[in-house]
Amino acid sequence: MSKNLKYYYDLLSQPSRALFIFLEKTKIPYEKCPVSLGKGQHLTDDFKAINRFQKVPCIVDNQINLAESVAIMRYLCREYNVADHWYPHDSRVRARVDEYLEWQHHNTRAVCATYFQYTWLRPRMFGSKVDPKRADQYRAQMETCLDFIENEFLGGGAPFIVGKEISVADLLAVCEIEQPRMAGYDPYAGRPNLTKWMERVREATNPYYDEAHKFLNKLAQDTVAKNKL
Amino acid sequence: MSKNLKYYYDLLSQPSRALFIFLEKTKIPYEKCPVSLGKGQHLTDDFKAINRFQKVPCIVDNQINLAESVAIMRYLCREYNVADHWYPHDSRVRARVDEYLEWQHHNTRAVCATYFQYTWLRPRMFGSKVDPKRADQYRAQMETCLDFIENEFLGGGAPFIVGKEISVADLLAVCEIEQPRMAGYDPYAGRPNLTKWMERVREATNPYYDEAHKFLNKLAQDTVAKNKL
Repeated sequence: MSKNLKYYYDLLSQPSRALFIFLEKTKIPYEKCPVSLGKGQHLTDDFKAINRFQKVPCIVDNQINLAESVAIMRYLCREYNVADHWYPHDSRVRARVDEYLEWQHHNTRAVCATYFQYTWLRPRMFGSKVDPKRADQYRAQMETCLDFIENEFLGGGAPFIVGKEISVADLLAVCEIEQPRMAGYDPYAGRPNLTKWMERVREATNPYYDEAHKFLNKLAQDTVAKNKL
Repeated sequence: MSKNLKYYYDLLSQPSRALFIFLEKTKIPYEKCPVSLGKGQHLTDDFKAINRFQKVPCIVDNQINLAESVAIMRYLCREYNVADHWYPHDSRVRARVDEYLEWQHHNTRAVCATYFQYTWLRPRMFGSKVDPKRADQYRAQMETCLDFIENEFLGGGAPFIVGKEISVADLLAVCEIEQPRMAGYDPYAGRPNLTKWMERVREATNPYYDEAHKFLNKLAQDTVAKNKL
């Protein structure tokens, strides 16, 4: 029976991209419901009725209104017939995927988003000034995290965040790591493991990876061009 | 077969308390391995071999070294015969528990811990000064979150965070909310739903709730007494 799954997202949001790639790649049938964060469409009363947290991504189906990308991915893996590697049933491997999914909130997600928001988004949205000292501090925190992923999660030639196959952990990770590119920061420079891993995730999920990152790539190019002037 | 489960924790850490209460209440056999954060025992090379993230809580058993409280709870619910209400198998209810578990990282956990660390822990550990304006800002963020829990998660007389029975979401939530009491902030004042819910969680898990909070209660009393001087 069709669940009439509706997906609310904005491809400028990192977890929105991750879930978009996941839905496309797994061929889960869904209806696209784009929400423009830039236009404040998530702040309306209509949207609050869909998601009380007023954030994207979120889903609505016949059973539930659900927010939080990680909770949504787990739900979809239970409700649809997706390949096991996305969220493995093996208890030990699942624990390892879960560990990354919980760890990333205050690491990959927090540090890449903070740097991006402080140096790029807030000046454009609110006209706020960038204190170079504070920007350096945020960049240093981001680099510590990216180095940890390079040397720990992807150290010793590990092809993916957990084990030998792609999982939801890789999708969520890579979409966070792509974000600061819009602010002119290249997360892959000097990080060969991260570079090869990103290419691996991209190849495993294309054409959806490139589709999800189309607008981000355009903004990243603009920033690089502007910085050269 | 015994898994020889070892639990590494410090009862001054919020998720350490939540997991301690969970292990005790579910009667999962485990070995207590206290780690003193105050003495920096988590920063040693010995501890790094146990947990590469150098944080508590974490576990070690015959199968895995695992960090991240939420991932550990999910793992224990799979590996041991615990009552279903802790992490329900019903897909819709589980999705709702998962939603809270993911949401709390940048909400309950982030705001209560930030206020506690800025106003109480950092001045004591590093001698750092408290800027009253910044403290007010952190308190306002915490209060917005506590009000959301009061009115949304626990609104309309809901007995627990999700549904009619206690789950791991309640344990993680209440242990975060107790934390700022050490800094002299009473999260329950003016929040009747939160107060009744905390009492409900406490009753459902005692004597372990009080055991987990024994040292915290002592420090909270000291702060209140000091503020009266």
